[in-house]
Amino acid sequence: MKNWQLKKLSKKSQARLGVLKTAHGNIATPFFMPIATKGAVKAIATQDLEKLQAQIILSNTYHQYLRPGLKILNKTKGLHNFMNWSGPILTDSGGFQVFSLDASLERKGISKSGKVKVDRQVTNQGVEFRSYLDGSKHLFTPEKVIKIQQTIGSDIMMVLDECVGNPSTKAVAKAAVERTTLWARQALAAKKKLKITKQQLFAIVQGSLYQDLRLQSVQELTVMDFDGFAIGGLAVGENNIEMYKVLDYTVPALPSDKPRYLMGVGYPENIIESVKRGVDMFDCVIPTREARHGRFYVRKKGWKYETVNITNSKQATKFSAINEKSTIPELREYTWAYLHHLFKTGEPLAIRLATLNNVEFYLNWMKDVRQAIKVGKL
Amino acid sequence: MKNWQLKKLSKKSQARLGVLKTAHGNIATPFFMPIATKGAVKAIATQDLEKLQAQIILSNTYHQYLRPGLKILNKTKGLHNFMNWSGPILTDSGGFQVFSLDASLERKGISKSGKVKVDRQVTNQGVEFRSYLDGSKHLFTPEKVIKIQQTIGSDIMMVLDECVGNPSTKAVAKAAVERTTLWARQALAAKKKLKITKQQLFAIVQGSLYQDLRLQSVQELTVMDFDGFAIGGLAVGENNIEMYKVLDYTVPALPSDKPRYLMGVGYPENIIESVKRGVDMFDCVIPTREARHGRFYVRKKGWKYETVNITNSKQATKFSAINEKSTIPELREYTWAYLHHLFKTGEPLAIRLATLNNVEFYLNWMKDVRQAIKVGKL
Repeated sequence: MKNWQLKKLSKKSQARLGVLKTAHGNIATPFFMPIATKGAVKAIATQDLEKLQAQIILSNTYHQYLRPGLKILNKTKGLHNFMNWSGPILTDSGGFQVFSLDASLERKGISKSGKVKVDRQVTNQGVEFRSYLDGSKHLFTPEKVIKIQQTIGSDIMMVLDECVGNPSTKAVAKAAVERTTLWARQALAAKKKLKITKQQLFAIVQGSLYQDLRLQSVQELTVMDFDGFAIGGLAVGENNIEMYKVLDYTVPALPSDKPRYLMGVGYPENIIESVKRGVDMFDCVIPTREARHGRFYVRKKGWKYETVNITNSKQATKFSAINEKSTIPELREYTWAYLHHLFKTGEPLAIRLATLNNVEFYLNWMKDVRQAIKVGKL
Repeated sequence: MKNWQLKKLSKKSQARLGVLKTAHGNIATPFFMPIATKGAVKAIATQDLEKLQAQIILSNTYHQYLRPGLKILNKTKGLHNFMNWSGPILTDSGGFQVFSLDASLERKGISKSGKVKVDRQVTNQGVEFRSYLDGSKHLFTPEKVIKIQQTIGSDIMMVLDECVGNPSTKAVAKAAVERTTLWARQALAAKKKLKITKQQLFAIVQGSLYQDLRLQSVQELTVMDFDGFAIGGLAVGENNIEMYKVLDYTVPALPSDKPRYLMGVGYPENIIESVKRGVDMFDCVIPTREARHGRFYVRKKGWKYETVNITNSKQATKFSAINEKSTIPELREYTWAYLHHLFKTGEPLAIRLATLNNVEFYLNWMKDVRQAIKVGKL
């Protein structure tokens, strides 16, 4: 039985409307996943996510493994019960978290200069890293990452992959592709060995900005029986044109009957452009992270939007509602002036309301994307 | 017309059931006021307060004056509109905030040692202080404090008073009583001059732990036409026995037909003991402040309760609901183990839920106090 069903293919672009079936319900694609890194979408509750009609959330294998840890998750029979979320959950493999620290340090030139010792080692066996909590050493292998995700009970598991930074030399990018393929094979074998049937497993295409490497990665991964394919290693510093170019040649090479997930992307316009290129799934920290910095996403006519910086003094005297059409009473009833005041005084309520606003914006954006495909306008 | 009506006088104690009439509705006494210092009860929204059936909230003249400031509050015609709260608001005079910084520094011996320059000066004219925001100088006079509260539009205004720390010499306490009387007279004159009719004004009894000074303060204030009387200068470091003793001789000297407000008190048992001595109104930072430190108030049988320290490792594996009887879905649906996790990972949702729990505890405590008086059990 197929996990993904096409409902409509656009005539104007590669955009597709579909349904992804998971152990915790069916989801309309294309969709966006709010990020619950540590088991909660920052500053909001699962009850809020239900009100906002979030279809699925994303959590992190790496963080869940370190805290609350597998003992607790074993007792609750997984993350769904632990965090009181009855909808689908996707967990990324933990690889990106381990790599991204390193990559961001390298970009800043810190690890090169030897100022900070980067505590992770990648071998063909897996990734060894130190816990951010207590400095203890841990080894993530492709199999171990599947075992952890089995305990978490996520509806969609991701394979351990090697994500390289941008720019990367071709040699580095090629080695990462080959290691990612090796690990993907091991992850799939682990899934079979562990008799995991209700959880799906997605592979991750790597290859940096090199067309031949991306296509090599696709070719090597798609011969294996994965439930879906993610495109990783983007949104790591390249510009939009470079990213769209990768999608232009990568997405068409992926199987047309399986869901496609662009990891870590992006701004609303990035999502539209990627949907047009045939992507079905998205996640990004932007709505929640920008909320913490007081930036509110506000919809304008059509696909236009603006980001309002709430701490700007202009907001101090704007006595109109944050969003008259919101499903959240606070966003209908509170004014920009009041939210400006809450941010200026450092009231914790401020970040909660900004997060609700931005997550609602993203989820509505996706609703409109689906509607536009349905009526043939995208 | 009387602002306060007695509904029932206990036969077992001085406890009294009543109704306080305000411009924003009637409130059953005795009651507790959650504190919205800067225009929001920390981490929760006015919509939450409605769900918790808070009858009235307390805000601070001093903080409102500095931010958002009178320009904004003039434009919204007061704090009610600005913060979207349609119930009654009491504002304290701002005097306590100005004094308490100083008192706490003095207790620590900091200002005496000259390490920190305490930027306030009290004269018979008023209190001069520096803004915590920008260091600018401001003078609060009894009249100015009334004017500010007129702009805020609070249902109950408090006079500017002089609150001394504990212990205080008799000379210091006596001077404060006399200055408080002088200022109360000026505040009342200002109210008349400004033609304020819909806002009530309460005087504040001072006198530290000296019986004759407390009675002198009561005697001087009660000859004037205030709408209610507060007992100030308690909960500033004295022990419970000392505090109850002050109530034992002060409360009976107050008019029996006007509401009595014990400022800044206290723990649940302090509230019971004070209600038994004839107090009608309370406010305290305990429920909100303790929430931020991860301490959850939990009701046991009768008047018993406990405070659970959520970060204690025992809570990591407690998979029962925070409070099955809560009106807040999150508190019914989330477990101690999950809240433990949220606190340990520093998720902002944690403090919100702890605050909702503790405010609900206090409001329910007061409901039960009123019920106990009604059925003759207190």
